[in-house]
Amino acid sequence: MDKLLKEEKVFKDPVHKYIYVQEKTIWDLINSKEFQRLRRIRQLGTSFLTFHGAEHSRFSHSLGVYEITRRIISQFERNEYPDWPRQEKLLCLCAALLHDIGHGPFSHSIEQTFTVHHEEWSCRIILGDTEVNAILREVEEDFPRKVANVICKTYGEPIVVSLISSQLDADRMDYLLRDAYFTGVNYGTFDLDRILRVLRPYKRGIVVKDSGMHAVEDYLMSRYQMYWQIYFHPVTRSAEILLSKIFGRAKQLHEEAYSFGFLLPPIRALLEQRLTVEDYHGLDESVMQTMFTLWQEEDDPVLADLCRRFLNRKLFRYIELDHRENSSVLESIRQAMIKAGWDPLYYLEIDFATDLPYDVYRPGEVEEKLPILLLDHKEELVEISLKSEIVRSISGIHMGEHHLYFPEELLEDPSFPEELKRILRPGKPE
Amino acid sequence: MDKLLKEEKVFKDPVHKYIYVQEKTIWDLINSKEFQRLRRIRQLGTSFLTFHGAEHSRFSHSLGVYEITRRIISQFERNEYPDWPRQEKLLCLCAALLHDIGHGPFSHSIEQTFTVHHEEWSCRIILGDTEVNAILREVEEDFPRKVANVICKTYGEPIVVSLISSQLDADRMDYLLRDAYFTGVNYGTFDLDRILRVLRPYKRGIVVKDSGMHAVEDYLMSRYQMYWQIYFHPVTRSAEILLSKIFGRAKQLHEEAYSFGFLLPPIRALLEQRLTVEDYHGLDESVMQTMFTLWQEEDDPVLADLCRRFLNRKLFRYIELDHRENSSVLESIRQAMIKAGWDPLYYLEIDFATDLPYDVYRPGEVEEKLPILLLDHKEELVEISLKSEIVRSISGIHMGEHHLYFPEELLEDPSFPEELKRILRPGKPE
Amino acid sequence: MDKLLKEEKVFKDPVHKYIYVQEKTIWDLINSKEFQRLRRIRQLGTSFLTFHGAEHSRFSHSLGVYEITRRIISQFERNEYPDWPRQEKLLCLCAALLHDIGHGPFSHSIEQTFTVHHEEWSCRIILGDTEVNAILREVEEDFPRKVANVICKTYGEPIVVSLISSQLDADRMDYLLRDAYFTGVNYGTFDLDRILRVLRPYKRGIVVKDSGMHAVEDYLMSRYQMYWQIYFHPVTRSAEILLSKIFGRAKQLHEEAYSFGFLLPPIRALLEQRLTVEDYHGLDESVMQTMFTLWQEEDDPVLADLCRRFLNRKLFRYIELDHRENSSVLESIRQAMIKAGWDPLYYLEIDFATDLPYDVYRPGEVEEKLPILLLDHKEELVEISLKSEIVRSISGIHMGEHHLYFPEELLEDPSFPEELKRILRPGKPE
Amino acid sequence: MDKLLKEEKVFKDPVHKYIYVQEKTIWDLINSKEFQRLRRIRQLGTSFLTFHGAEHSRFSHSLGVYEITRRIISQFERNEYPDWPRQEKLLCLCAALLHDIGHGPFSHSIEQTFTVHHEEWSCRIILGDTEVNAILREVEEDFPRKVANVICKTYGEPIVVSLISSQLDADRMDYLLRDAYFTGVNYGTFDLDRILRVLRPYKRGIVVKDSGMHAVEDYLMSRYQMYWQIYFHPVTRSAEILLSKIFGRAKQLHEEAYSFGFLLPPIRALLEQRLTVEDYHGLDESVMQTMFTLWQEEDDPVLADLCRRFLNRKLFRYIELDHRENSSVLESIRQAMIKAGWDPLYYLEIDFATDLPYDVYRPGEVEEKLPILLLDHKEELVEISLKSEIVRSISGIHMGEHHLYFPEELLEDPSFPEELKRILRPGKPE
Repeated sequence: MDKLLKEEKVFKDPVHKYIYVQEKTIWDLINSKEFQRLRRIRQLGTSFLTFHGAEHSRFSHSLGVYEITRRIISQFERNEYPDWPRQEKLLCLCAALLHDIGHGPFSHSIEQTFTVHHEEWSCRIILGDTEVNAILREVEEDFPRKVANVICKTYGEPIVVSLISSQLDADRMDYLLRDAYFTGVNYGTFDLDRILRVLRPYKRGIVVKDSGMHAVEDYLMSRYQMYWQIYFHPVTRSAEILLSKIFGRAKQLHEEAYSFGFLLPPIRALLEQRLTVEDYHGLDESVMQTMFTLWQEEDDPVLADLCRRFLNRKLFRYIELDHRENSSVLESIRQAMIKAGWDPLYYLEIDFATDLPYDVYRPGEVEEKLPILLLDHKEELVEISLKSEIVRSISGIHMGEHHLYFPEELLEDPSFPEELKRILRPGKPE
Repeated sequence: MDKLLKEEKVFKDPVHKYIYVQEKTIWDLINSKEFQRLRRIRQLGTSFLTFHGAEHSRFSHSLGVYEITRRIISQFERNEYPDWPRQEKLLCLCAALLHDIGHGPFSHSIEQTFTVHHEEWSCRIILGDTEVNAILREVEEDFPRKVANVICKTYGEPIVVSLISSQLDADRMDYLLRDAYFTGVNYGTFDLDRILRVLRPYKRGIVVKDSGMHAVEDYLMSRYQMYWQIYFHPVTRSAEILLSKIFGRAKQLHEEAYSFGFLLPPIRALLEQRLTVEDYHGLDESVMQTMFTLWQEEDDPVLADLCRRFLNRKLFRYIELDHRENSSVLESIRQAMIKAGWDPLYYLEIDFATDLPYDVYRPGEVEEKLPILLLDHKEELVEISLKSEIVRSISGIHMGEHHLYFPEELLEDPSFPEELKRILRPGKPE
Repeated sequence: MDKLLKEEKVFKDPVHKYIYVQEKTIWDLINSKEFQRLRRIRQLGTSFLTFHGAEHSRFSHSLGVYEITRRIISQFERNEYPDWPRQEKLLCLCAALLHDIGHGPFSHSIEQTFTVHHEEWSCRIILGDTEVNAILREVEEDFPRKVANVICKTYGEPIVVSLISSQLDADRMDYLLRDAYFTGVNYGTFDLDRILRVLRPYKRGIVVKDSGMHAVEDYLMSRYQMYWQIYFHPVTRSAEILLSKIFGRAKQLHEEAYSFGFLLPPIRALLEQRLTVEDYHGLDESVMQTMFTLWQEEDDPVLADLCRRFLNRKLFRYIELDHRENSSVLESIRQAMIKAGWDPLYYLEIDFATDLPYDVYRPGEVEEKLPILLLDHKEELVEISLKSEIVRSISGIHMGEHHLYFPEELLEDPSFPEELKRILRPGKPE
Repeated sequence: MDKLLKEEKVFKDPVHKYIYVQEKTIWDLINSKEFQRLRRIRQLGTSFLTFHGAEHSRFSHSLGVYEITRRIISQFERNEYPDWPRQEKLLCLCAALLHDIGHGPFSHSIEQTFTVHHEEWSCRIILGDTEVNAILREVEEDFPRKVANVICKTYGEPIVVSLISSQLDADRMDYLLRDAYFTGVNYGTFDLDRILRVLRPYKRGIVVKDSGMHAVEDYLMSRYQMYWQIYFHPVTRSAEILLSKIFGRAKQLHEEAYSFGFLLPPIRALLEQRLTVEDYHGLDESVMQTMFTLWQEEDDPVLADLCRRFLNRKLFRYIELDHRENSSVLESIRQAMIKAGWDPLYYLEIDFATDLPYDVYRPGEVEEKLPILLLDHKEELVEISLKSEIVRSISGIHMGEHHLYFPEELLEDPSFPEELKRILRPGKPE
């Protein structure tokens, strides 16, 4: 049974005004040390180096996802929709709150280099010997397993999963609004109240009343703009690449049995690829940044240099890549860099923005996220892009540019050929 | 001479929409490693533990102060006010940008325990062997000294100082708006545009055209509310007290020649009170938090416990103190704690909110900040509280409560007397 | 019984985002012709001549008051507060929606000149042979009488009355927010969500949980600023005075049996002081303005001139009046005007802002509005100014200035003495 | 010469915060009686019957267009762009302010029925014997002619015309933001500051620096949404249709020499199609509404009924028309209506939303508005849809639905056949 707090608790939130907590389980989870750790991990990773306001944490985003889920369910309950499984409320709220509990610092870069995956870590934390696990077990012995299943999308009630993970889920709705608020851009704003009002539980999923189509169009346009203006911003990508290079170099050195100075314990465990849940708990952005600070003094000049660049924001420059240049010119650049003493493995990168865990809405493509279905007054369902020309238009767009990243100093290096410098000159991170 | 950038640079800012940079000096200062370090120091210290949105950095605030200063000067130039010393523009902008460059992590707590003072550090960084210093010297050999003088309020032109430091300065105007935005409260909003329009250079200071009186009233009311709702919030104070206890304990252990495990280099220098500018550069919130993480495993139980409390947000509880209780009851609590095995030096604190570097506007009190003067159409000056009843009312208020802070576990401790527990029970951090 | 609509209806509202209608009675009332008439009456009378955004109608304000009332009740019901009389819900909603149904065009000016009072007209419309009356009678034969009693504050359940009419009622909360939004000023914003959350039904009234004290302080400060910056703005007063002069002149001419050209029927009824409910229905701002348009061509030069001034916004100028000048100087001005051919009855006015139906919060004064009471955790009540220093400060302020209004042309009139012109020169409507 | 005011004047505006006036000519124009008349004409015609906040006037929109134009020019001057013709500033400002001076009440409906066109009336007012004309002539004898030419797009400097009238002009930018603000929808918000910063005078036109492409995309998406959600809203269309029917009926009656009761003078002139500039000045929404009020009592039952419907907001219902139904079914409905005593000329209408003076951006179509050109860093121009996939997508969409409008009572009329009622039942104005 859901035990209620004697008195509702409230958090001030810039995006949702207030976040309301009624269940004791939710309150305890928020106060667990694993959830508090999310305060030390930025929601947008390196985006703060492009948009200085983007310093908000996964803690605040997780509260936001919880709050949106709470409001959706509260609407379902108020209207007594028969297809809503009322007994799943607490499960939904817990899964919403904890869906990012396994996120590490700068996840995208770390996950690529080391074999860690945040969803897997969410489950390890929920199922392991943790405060979170103990709190969930107070509800029911099997409750941690259920929460983990929802997060891993294997739970038997698809309607529960779709609240947290679909094309129109609480996760996305919060991060679009929140990231827009903290970066200060206009793009991510859409009418959340309106969308919440037109969601309907329908059989085993959640659909949208067709009178809400325009609000959903607006949401999808916001999402489109946010991806291209914020999430794929080339300066942010430049910082991400630098991080990947640092992790790649450290891993390589470790494999070569390089003798590091003092390694902070969770970093040591990461390099040795034997992270326990406890180690992982210590792996936050503070530790990461402190490690970079220490590594600035390492003997390995590549590692030290890359860390200095990251901390002092001396990011790589970039140019847009013409598709024809890809093969031969790139090979010339690579060769010339080696000759001039730059290791292209660490100082050159081709990046294609769409190789990323963000997506524009493209119904029909093979992917795991559930599409958006409209429910008309005859109780018939239709996928939104069949009805909305604007969604059809957006989802047909295949954008994405190739960028080439390299250190600015290359342009001043006398041993790097002038004709290649000319190619690299236009376009520069602001 | 102010060298201009070929093309104006722009930062997206949630508070001022955009921040514009035209001078090469400003652009270079922003890109200096000392200024980039401000990204790793939160503007509001521990307030994020009360208001989770308050994760913004001193980097963003410093840009904001710069931008407000730029707008004020631009208005002065556009209107060609004769009392404005045009040649001081770049100096004002640099001082505005750099006024917080010497801030360390969790300044208030650190400054009390160790003998560091952020304004002094600002000057050491500006005058020392730093990137910032080199950039300023490119303007003029003596320029770093001038900037330092403005920040220390000893510069010969008081009008320059008052832009950065007065009762209505760019610093306060930015932080009120910014802190309101990131915490999500309504209180701090006032009409910045209007205030900027009614500022006038007048003789050697800056005054307010009297038609702007109501906008200034609104600003002072905002300030009043922000102090009591945000800056003096007892939960934030609780976190600050915990930090002071940690620093105090570490200092004490160091003085007792306790053998620490690994000490991060800037922390070692801090404890040994021999911080160089270079050490100070490394002293950011990441390092501090990482140190706390390591200290959780220290042998000293008090230090380890306090660090765990801070990282996991197990803050001290508090009650409001009745003035009569101050002496005898407090002494009983202290004695009972010692008997029960709690060292009151680290587990008990009386806090009086107004012992803090924030102030409500109180003209006439002996203080360094210049008062707000209104200029009427007869070109006569009058201090605002003489004309505004609302300002007079606010400035007469002497608020501030005494709070007693202590660990929650005391209330469960069987060896602590029941009658004292009863005193400590009402009121608790949310 | 409250009959519910098959499907909730929704209005887009800039202030509350959405206004929700669930009861059929409310829906029908909104669609009644008497309620639709409120679209033709501006909420702020002549303020649009000072703040051009202030063109919003009493229709939108009435919906807003309804919506705030609905939210308060919905919170009371959700929390199942025992002191809330659940059966009064529909009565509260109807009274909230209809509380201004009797407002005529430019009420303040008209009510002074003719013996009409909007609250009395509200009751006449609710009890008369109207669509509103028929809809209310469908609920219960006696229901119109009950609604009228709530609006006239004579209803037996004071808690119902206090929702609509007290120092912290739905009426004020809506108009402060709405008028701030449409004028575009910052002053009127306060945290409505927070206030709604801390209201509690308590015995036969509504009180505020003491943790909400600061939100109420903020509301009272907003109110204070709105009164002085918006409602008492001297340019708006100037327009109001012009209106009173027009009505006064028309009334005088009618009494003198002056032969008007075509009189629009409701205006004729107004002048003859025999307004029926049906006449009153036709009395909106369009009719008033059209009458002024026609009166521009009237033979009476005073009436024609005053109407031209109003329509073309040639308002009277004003100066602040020094108290000492009141008697003798004023008499000289009056005499000189007569000599120069200006009738001071229509071209001169002394105005004292506080002679108006707005008030700053002043507990203890003899007035009908219920004070704001705080409920502490010991379930004790205390009037807010006893606990809040800021409220005490504001409520002690006795502002209000005397202004003298007169036509600008007087200053150019060669037959008006130069020394009196000198007195009238400084200060002018923007 | 542009004469400057001694002191800048300021209007509070909810959309642009403040509107600044520096030139005496602008100040005088605003105070002219022709410009003041715009206060009596709503910007969005009948939209207030759908969105109750949309009560703002053409007065406020005109000030907004002026302000945006002022800001654009101020940026051009500050950056000293060589292609900007500085001497045209005052002309641009006057044309921006006056571009809608010829708008009558409910223009769209009136213009269709009677042969009036607002642009033509703007020129007649500017060139006729008016206060506006006199003020403009003070600048230069030929100045009224120049202003009229800019408004009619025949002025010799196309750059001046394009500020006021192009696909990205001050007119559209203001109305999108303003209409979004007053209706309360999210759709119309875009980053005005950003767009103003990237506009560049280039040869004889205005282009957009290509770094601003995304901001322009956002603007075009806003525009797209505003058209479909606000401007073409079927309930608003229903009100427009009712107006057209009223005007059509009155015209028909006048042509049949019907004897009206009292006709307000400007309405008489309108019906007799002999409007002078002076008559036109009196033709505002108040007069129109008052006429409708009087016409409710006319002997002609159709005119009286239509007016009552409009004033009491008893709008026609509508259904979406399937294309196949158009011919035969419609004819049956028409015949059945006649049989049942409803004149289909006044009680039936087929409406196709895109037959309206709003447009989605469709480059390549034959139209008068200049397209949006991007300027890249090689100083080459490219039309935006060639570079932006999202603009290409939007501009390819050909939406627009046919709606059939009819009185609700038809569905209750026993003499109207049941099978036709069944066709008309689904879909109803909210």
